[in-house]
Amino acid sequence: MTNALRVSPRELARLISGLERGDAEAQQRIFALYRQPPRAHMIGVTGAPGCGKSTLIAALTRVWRRQGSTVAILSVDPSSPFTGGAILGDRIRMGELSQDPGVFIRSMASRGAQGGVAQAAADAAIALDAAGFERIVIETVGAGQSDISIVHLADTVVVVEAPGLGDDIQAIKAGMLEIADVLVVNKADRPEAEAAFSTLAAALELGEAVTGHHGPAGVAGRISMPPAHHRSADGWRVPLLKVSALRAEGVEAVAQAIALHQRWQAAHPERAQERAAQALREHLQSMLLRAALDRIGEQQFNAWALRCAARELHPAEAAAQLLASVVKEGDCA
Amino acid sequence: MTNALRVSPRELARLISGLERGDAEAQQRIFALYRQPPRAHMIGVTGAPGCGKSTLIAALTRVWRRQGSTVAILSVDPSSPFTGGAILGDRIRMGELSQDPGVFIRSMASRGAQGGVAQAAADAAIALDAAGFERIVIETVGAGQSDISIVHLADTVVVVEAPGLGDDIQAIKAGMLEIADVLVVNKADRPEAEAAFSTLAAALELGEAVTGHHGPAGVAGRISMPPAHHRSADGWRVPLLKVSALRAEGVEAVAQAIALHQRWQAAHPERAQERAAQALREHLQSMLLRAALDRIGEQQFNAWALRCAARELHPAEAAAQLLASVVKEGDCA
Repeated sequence: MTNALRVSPRELARLISGLERGDAEAQQRIFALYRQPPRAHMIGVTGAPGCGKSTLIAALTRVWRRQGSTVAILSVDPSSPFTGGAILGDRIRMGELSQDPGVFIRSMASRGAQGGVAQAAADAAIALDAAGFERIVIETVGAGQSDISIVHLADTVVVVEAPGLGDDIQAIKAGMLEIADVLVVNKADRPEAEAAFSTLAAALELGEAVTGHHGPAGVAGRISMPPAHHRSADGWRVPLLKVSALRAEGVEAVAQAIALHQRWQAAHPERAQERAAQALREHLQSMLLRAALDRIGEQQFNAWALRCAARELHPAEAAAQLLASVVKEGDCA
Repeated sequence: MTNALRVSPRELARLISGLERGDAEAQQRIFALYRQPPRAHMIGVTGAPGCGKSTLIAALTRVWRRQGSTVAILSVDPSSPFTGGAILGDRIRMGELSQDPGVFIRSMASRGAQGGVAQAAADAAIALDAAGFERIVIETVGAGQSDISIVHLADTVVVVEAPGLGDDIQAIKAGMLEIADVLVVNKADRPEAEAAFSTLAAALELGEAVTGHHGPAGVAGRISMPPAHHRSADGWRVPLLKVSALRAEGVEAVAQAIALHQRWQAAHPERAQERAAQALREHLQSMLLRAALDRIGEQQFNAWALRCAARELHPAEAAAQLLASVVKEGDCA
């Protein structure tokens, strides 16, 4: 890497702030950095509030630091202790990591515009890669579709579940299992963990949970391999792991499963291609809307919105008519 | 309402299924129905998995049924018992409601496309209004931006919080408080409820929680009125209520707060106008992307996506170049 393509720690913070603001100069810098082959492993970690994602990320970071890897944590979860919005206990738990120069911790502001924070986070990850971080963790709250779009940025997606979040563990399952590359039941120290584990194992069509061979024996670190048909799209078998992030039990097995997936996906470029296609679609969409709104003009847009509010026209009809009139008068002038 | 504009129970189910499929005939029917003035009150209910949204909705529905109102529940939450994905206990809790002809319960499938389910739910609500339902509840999981866009459909947004979801109550707060018209702390029977209530009261800049006058005295049903500056945008004061939906304590106070907000917003049409503008923007955006992808063609799109995946071009650069070439060659041919 030439000097011009290396991002210094000092530039890094400035660059990420620029991306959050939508700064053109920061954007140009990212375009240049993007032309380098990616070196870092991008890991998405998601799960419902209260599942212990942040504790797991901190525990994983300690494992990676012991292995000699540098780690960047990018949080787009407003509940994360990394973002500074958390209670004292969490901050203390993170404390020693924030003193380590081999660990970078940053939160991204969640903008109103859909896709906005996902695009900024994707670009921040490019900057972190150019700054030399080897593991880049992108932390999001699991539930909505916006999280799924952030998760599209990652090479490896870790979905964290926990017992005691009520009956709704079913729910998270519904949307989140489909995107998991590694599935973790956290808080294995709690008695209800076994039930959550069984539910997930059943959901993965395992039938009976199988004791795996990647982690230490016993409650934590157990890995089950569902049959390959679970992820027929690309053939990866999603491991199901039980950990207690708080007690640091089973965390090395999660790190190992992540490393296994990293190696696997390096040999399967389809996901990276689909991610690029998705990013292209999202950029097309936001550019198109911006251009259309510019051409329509605020006054005309507001007039049509008022007609919709007055129930003269359904918004889909208004959109179709508005576009037809704009294309006719605009493009060939 | 003329007969042609009345939707029979039989048509209703068919119409909603048509909307989920994106059926053109169903869409035309909605366009016609949209021209009627809305009569129903649209109520969005959102909150994290495990907060007890569904139990609260069931309890509210019982209150409204006792008051003689018909109720439709539209669930876009994959974890909801209304969608059929839930455990037996929940289904039993709902059981008697699903036998009541004055109650309509339907879940909407969550599509991959962003905005897809929100648009379909908006249209389903129009059909439910035309079918004569007086209260239409739209239930979503709280956290992501997609939920916030669904919440844009509602006249009144109820945000449900609960103790015992971990430290992350902070989190939900961050994104969700801004959209709440009525804020509910559920599971008031639990000892930790007081802490959750105080946290939220502080977040609303109440300082000290004030005992209100809308509900019965005591733990449940307490309403606090934060100072008006909390919602400076439109001046509504968000009530904070403590309930135990499971024990049906405090639920009438929630129904009352919702009714108060209904009356308030009828006198403040700005929100309905902003909602129409937002719907118009979203329809413009999805139509623009569809039209652009049609014009670009799959082969050309894939070629550009591959260039992005190969790191020749950042997706934002590719999108800009692709749009420039498409506009040049396409519109004046």
